[in-house]
Amino acid sequence: MAKRSFKEDILEAGLRVMLRKGYAAASVRDVVAEAGVPQGSFTNHFRSKEAFSRDVLDLYFQHVRDLVSLALDDESLKPRQRLQRYLHIITGRLESDDFKRGCLIGDFSLEAAPVSEMLRARLSEIFLEWRDRFADCIREAQSSGEIDATFTPEDLADFLLSSWEGAIMRMKVERSSVALERFQKIAFATVFKGCT
Amino acid sequence: MAKRSFKEDILEAGLRVMLRKGYAAASVRDVVAEAGVPQGSFTNHFRSKEAFSRDVLDLYFQHVRDLVSLALDDESLKPRQRLQRYLHIITGRLESDDFKRGCLIGDFSLEAAPVSEMLRARLSEIFLEWRDRFADCIREAQSSGEIDATFTPEDLADFLLSSWEGAIMRMKVERSSVALERFQKIAFATVFKGCT
Repeated sequence: MAKRSFKEDILEAGLRVMLRKGYAAASVRDVVAEAGVPQGSFTNHFRSKEAFSRDVLDLYFQHVRDLVSLALDDESLKPRQRLQRYLHIITGRLESDDFKRGCLIGDFSLEAAPVSEMLRARLSEIFLEWRDRFADCIREAQSSGEIDATFTPEDLADFLLSSWEGAIMRMKVERSSVALERFQKIAFATVFKGCT
Repeated sequence: MAKRSFKEDILEAGLRVMLRKGYAAASVRDVVAEAGVPQGSFTNHFRSKEAFSRDVLDLYFQHVRDLVSLALDDESLKPRQRLQRYLHIITGRLESDDFKRGCLIGDFSLEAAPVSEMLRARLSEIFLEWRDRFADCIREAQSSGEIDATFTPEDLADFLLSSWEGAIMRMKVERSSVALERFQKIAFATVFKGCT
């Protein structure tokens, strides 16, 4: 029981440290210090930093899934508004960290994917699942004419998520919400506009 | 004379290592090994890894400036075609590395900006210069009606560069040109389409 709780503490600590320092710079020592547990607890639960990082990424993606559901399952909103709601929720989360932390999926895509095949493969699966959730919402918006149907829902969902990650990247440099707001303003007046 | 040449060798080696391993994982030892020079040569020329990394970033941006000029100064093309030409040139460069290496400006934005104020400030200046070059081209395209003028040239240029960085991020995960091509296809049919 205590052992199980330690594992979760270490993963949550790893997530905080990796969002702050990145994949390479976050050492096992940093993680156990952040978790306040002995180093041995780490090696009891995780066989390598790479395997640990995959579990941290899965934990992060679970949080993302919850936020996706919060926005895309909100039937009080029209499908197109649900997409905007998601970006709005994420903007609020990023603001609560003073725009200093970004998205672990983006961070790992640039930093970990080139050096770890395990993490690269997991990131690819994550993007697919994430994309499909958005594609379903975009398909619904296209059938009601809320979003132009020139491109497939999958292409538009991939475009949305990739470009949004690009906006978060710029946010990390400027430490402000300007890039996030610019993205929303332009994308919803062009790529994600209606057929009318 | 030999000293000057060593400095350039170390910077070029640093650029290769950092594009491959990222900022945190690239050690001074890796860089001097890649350059084939003694460790002392590094400390003769650079006072810290952080200061060295700023010079590496500047060297990289000089390459980017050259590619920007190659595309945006090509007066045989219309302004809108020059933008497409730039993305096409970059796609070719990324392909020559089998889509394993991305853009050092993007890599540093996510990984170095949060831990180094010096690099964050330099990245912010770089984005501004880069953005202004594209904004000039977009302004020209807008005056001839090639690109819709609802948004300012600066906003559109920032949108283009950020979203393109997001596409490069996804490319690094998928190790293919799909995300780069999708971006070009969608962006030029929507955000960067004409007024007609």
